[in-house]
Amino acid sequence: MRAIQQKGKYSFVFSRYSEPVARVEPGEEVTLQTEDAFCGLLENEDDDLDEVKKRRGGPNPQTGPLYIEGARAGDTLKVHIINIEPARDWAVSCIQKDFGGLTPNKFTRMIDVPPHDKVYVYRFDNEGMLRCGDFLRFPWKPFLGTIATAPELEAVSSLTPFENGGNMDCPDIRPGNIVYLPVSVDGAYFFTGDCHANQGEGEVCGTALEISANVKLKFDIIKGKKIEWPRIESADEYMVAGSARPMEDAARIAYAELIEWMTEFGWDRLDAYQALTQAGKLYCANMVDTNYTMVAKAAKTLICRSAAR
Amino acid sequence: MRAIQQKGKYSFVFSRYSEPVARVEPGEEVTLQTEDAFCGLLENEDDDLDEVKKRRGGPNPQTGPLYIEGARAGDTLKVHIINIEPARDWAVSCIQKDFGGLTPNKFTRMIDVPPHDKVYVYRFDNEGMLRCGDFLRFPWKPFLGTIATAPELEAVSSLTPFENGGNMDCPDIRPGNIVYLPVSVDGAYFFTGDCHANQGEGEVCGTALEISANVKLKFDIIKGKKIEWPRIESADEYMVAGSARPMEDAARIAYAELIEWMTEFGWDRLDAYQALTQAGKLYCANMVDTNYTMVAKAAKTLICRSAAR
Amino acid sequence: MRAIQQKGKYSFVFSRYSEPVARVEPGEEVTLQTEDAFCGLLENEDDDLDEVKKRRGGPNPQTGPLYIEGARAGDTLKVHIINIEPARDWAVSCIQKDFGGLTPNKFTRMIDVPPHDKVYVYRFDNEGMLRCGDFLRFPWKPFLGTIATAPELEAVSSLTPFENGGNMDCPDIRPGNIVYLPVSVDGAYFFTGDCHANQGEGEVCGTALEISANVKLKFDIIKGKKIEWPRIESADEYMVAGSARPMEDAARIAYAELIEWMTEFGWDRLDAYQALTQAGKLYCANMVDTNYTMVAKAAKTLICRSAAR
Amino acid sequence: MRAIQQKGKYSFVFSRYSEPVARVEPGEEVTLQTEDAFCGLLENEDDDLDEVKKRRGGPNPQTGPLYIEGARAGDTLKVHIINIEPARDWAVSCIQKDFGGLTPNKFTRMIDVPPHDKVYVYRFDNEGMLRCGDFLRFPWKPFLGTIATAPELEAVSSLTPFENGGNMDCPDIRPGNIVYLPVSVDGAYFFTGDCHANQGEGEVCGTALEISANVKLKFDIIKGKKIEWPRIESADEYMVAGSARPMEDAARIAYAELIEWMTEFGWDRLDAYQALTQAGKLYCANMVDTNYTMVAKAAKTLICRSAAR
Repeated sequence: MRAIQQKGKYSFVFSRYSEPVARVEPGEEVTLQTEDAFCGLLENEDDDLDEVKKRRGGPNPQTGPLYIEGARAGDTLKVHIINIEPARDWAVSCIQKDFGGLTPNKFTRMIDVPPHDKVYVYRFDNEGMLRCGDFLRFPWKPFLGTIATAPELEAVSSLTPFENGGNMDCPDIRPGNIVYLPVSVDGAYFFTGDCHANQGEGEVCGTALEISANVKLKFDIIKGKKIEWPRIESADEYMVAGSARPMEDAARIAYAELIEWMTEFGWDRLDAYQALTQAGKLYCANMVDTNYTMVAKAAKTLICRSAAR
Repeated sequence: MRAIQQKGKYSFVFSRYSEPVARVEPGEEVTLQTEDAFCGLLENEDDDLDEVKKRRGGPNPQTGPLYIEGARAGDTLKVHIINIEPARDWAVSCIQKDFGGLTPNKFTRMIDVPPHDKVYVYRFDNEGMLRCGDFLRFPWKPFLGTIATAPELEAVSSLTPFENGGNMDCPDIRPGNIVYLPVSVDGAYFFTGDCHANQGEGEVCGTALEISANVKLKFDIIKGKKIEWPRIESADEYMVAGSARPMEDAARIAYAELIEWMTEFGWDRLDAYQALTQAGKLYCANMVDTNYTMVAKAAKTLICRSAAR
Repeated sequence: MRAIQQKGKYSFVFSRYSEPVARVEPGEEVTLQTEDAFCGLLENEDDDLDEVKKRRGGPNPQTGPLYIEGARAGDTLKVHIINIEPARDWAVSCIQKDFGGLTPNKFTRMIDVPPHDKVYVYRFDNEGMLRCGDFLRFPWKPFLGTIATAPELEAVSSLTPFENGGNMDCPDIRPGNIVYLPVSVDGAYFFTGDCHANQGEGEVCGTALEISANVKLKFDIIKGKKIEWPRIESADEYMVAGSARPMEDAARIAYAELIEWMTEFGWDRLDAYQALTQAGKLYCANMVDTNYTMVAKAAKTLICRSAAR
Repeated sequence: MRAIQQKGKYSFVFSRYSEPVARVEPGEEVTLQTEDAFCGLLENEDDDLDEVKKRRGGPNPQTGPLYIEGARAGDTLKVHIINIEPARDWAVSCIQKDFGGLTPNKFTRMIDVPPHDKVYVYRFDNEGMLRCGDFLRFPWKPFLGTIATAPELEAVSSLTPFENGGNMDCPDIRPGNIVYLPVSVDGAYFFTGDCHANQGEGEVCGTALEISANVKLKFDIIKGKKIEWPRIESADEYMVAGSARPMEDAARIAYAELIEWMTEFGWDRLDAYQALTQAGKLYCANMVDTNYTMVAKAAKTLICRSAAR
């Protein structure tokens, strides 16, 4: 199986404006090496976060773009997440003075608020848990923080979740699941990175258990099918990730697009709206990024109920 | 065990401004009869919703206030939800032309948008599921849509979730769980109602499986303990419900107050922020009411980890 | 002319649940004495703000309710603001550690943010300007921070702007202008207070030049006319104040209701939407209260253009 | 004076990823020809808007990039807006079924809402007013809807207002005023376009009086001065445009950055916060774009008061 290393610099945008690092055939399994959100530079609890930020070149380095053979604008890219392996024996998180869900930040500005950077380094213990001190100990539940195709014309920051995916920080983008992304340019220009060893819903302080990882993926193309926002499929559920601000707009997108998806199974739109009212799930994937991400989902057993109509 | 019927009219506000319908001792089990959100008037799929709304007196009729003996302003009321039994053999939901998460409404105004009222009546089938037509069929998973104590001075609409509880539409307020509410006036002035036979997260169309029910509760008082927002305890988890607009403010409240709760278990504030980043859950209870409600939660096994400090 | 003093305590809610302090006939001019937002207790720059808050009984004390003879639920109350005179020779403002547009607060919660209370006392100088130190000097441009009728059932905090008016902090509610308010209960139950000697748009730190004042008003009733949100009329403009969160919902309400108003002048709804796109004004009255207030307005010369249709 | 025509296609992003159409020296006056938001294709009231949108290549075509000689990343670009002349004898606006402040749209999703496209073509009348039918008639008050420098790495849609300017739709970006923009890449890569013959605050339906125009500009560079968000200077006022969602975040940015600007004049931060509370202005430039834009401003006479400190 082919291992793909990033040639040259990592990307800090999702865009068509750089050369593909590899060309991949549908159906081929590939392993991508990804770097962590701090470019591997934040390693000790007494590291100076400002210094690290200056040196890293940017936040959320991305591996890619991959050129997916046969993908054309207007198709849908189907990404099978097969496996995620840690590339190092540690993970890192931190509380930053200017980023986070309960921290004044670039968009939710406050006046005269003091710094409180704090770095947390986690190491695997004997039971395979990631541990930092006595109370912070979490299991290995890895997922892809970022996954995206390039937009048609924009170059989108690797901090941003948007219509083509991006920095959704959605724990359901994990091994065993499938992610569907819009294809906006020929070749799709696929990116991924920002793996997390674990993360709670909302990623409230703004950094999860950030890791470098080796990610095994396989791609398929659904020709001529156009979707508006990222979709996720697990063994049991169908999901849509909506990303916007304020958070209620993200929630609206997620449920509205899940209703659209249900119409493909034969549901009447109002009945789908009714069904999700009684049986949908709606959680927050991130409350910290440049857009907030809400994930709406429902059981396949519900959604498929009217397939035979 | 004492059964409490609403004397006179149901209440359409959470307030201290009406006479208690009963006085209850801490520790006493009582059963409250609650009416559904449409005052029982919406019963058939061809009922005229506008007509029903005119006749019902108000939305979300509340049973109460109960005067809880011994409760004083500044205490916390602990409500054990023991059981919820349906009072009728049907539930009702509807899509309303001017209310809902994907419907223009009183606050999110749109121009020239057409009506689409649609009523759904559900009946219990042989397997105890609530069914409406071929595809809409949901299990009996009842909970209290509203639960509140009276605020100090305000009379808050029964449509509103707020600091003292109210119309949170939170599915975790279910039998077996405990709800903690601030006491703002002597006697607490407790209200409940708006029972739902089932509901998805977000209650996206705005009406769940609305039922009349008989609700068995027991109250305790935690003297001299002041909480800022409603807390919920299940067998395995601690939760806080934050209600505000925009939705991110509700999320901020929920996590910020869960951090406060964790400090009562000995957690350092920043470490609690870090822990919830990795292991918190954050779902939307309602995206339709006058405030949105987000519920943050974490496992007791995590939160209690530092109790021995 | 009759001078009305608050009997007993000031009100900290807009509600029908207290006895009218006076009954007023339509057309009668009355002068109301109002107290400042700190109940007159914050007078020196070294006063302890926490201490003052504990002593004052509540924020934004209201004068009222006035029972307006002949007003019935479903009418509109027309309030002529004739004059505002200062009741003292000083005004006060302050930056509060837990309130304000750039300060973490009850709804927009942040973690571990430090206090910064600061009190500013302003006195009239020789030119009739209010001055505090060398750089803070502002003209006398008084207006009513709060003006409301009672809601049908709720008792709304005097900190809240809402459908019936309330704490809009809107500088256009000034002498010479007319405010139209919905009447929701017989007698209207009118309240006012929280006068400001001057205030910028948004009231960004949360407290304007807070004053005690004597306010001369006259009331009229428009029988059988129902409005949904407060309207304001100056010599040249028609305005609507919308109050909600997030701020875009307040903006939507303001423009949507101004469009409604324009239909009363014969405008087609879409054409009114078009006209306001090109010639409407939209400013922020407050970005600090429990709801944000946006004011949409347009010139009478524009709005009346189609009156002859 | 040099006239600059767009060579080849207009740009639909603000980015460094296309070749400059011209190189301009600081101090040189240039005239740029700009196309309207519909690429000149929407000309008649019965034009099919969907058809026009398909043909135009994109919304908001931009003229640029201009390479400004001597500008380096980290500088500030000072843009003097000298003049705007109409390039045609008409302007166009329209109400779109999927865009606008009171219309469900890509981010604020609604269910089952019907189309209402309507096109308005305005022509100059004898008095130099733009007129469409009997009631829609507005003076010539032209300004630049978009003005931006390229971001460091992103390519930002020409529909988006952001840190480097963009689609702010701010009526104060008009002849006689100066706009200050951050320089993020060498040469600045300046873009402008989307001229409006007039527009109300908020641009509520989403399209102003859209025109093609000839725009006379002059550039200066402030070496080594870094600003975070666009600043505007008129004869009498200093202003900051903040762009974000929800709208209150845009308001926070605008006032927070105006406070920063005031510190350059010697103001203490808390005193500036206090001063703007009493004398700031805060209006909505757009409530329809991918970010909302709020403009905070204050009189130069206020801000310069402490300059001599």
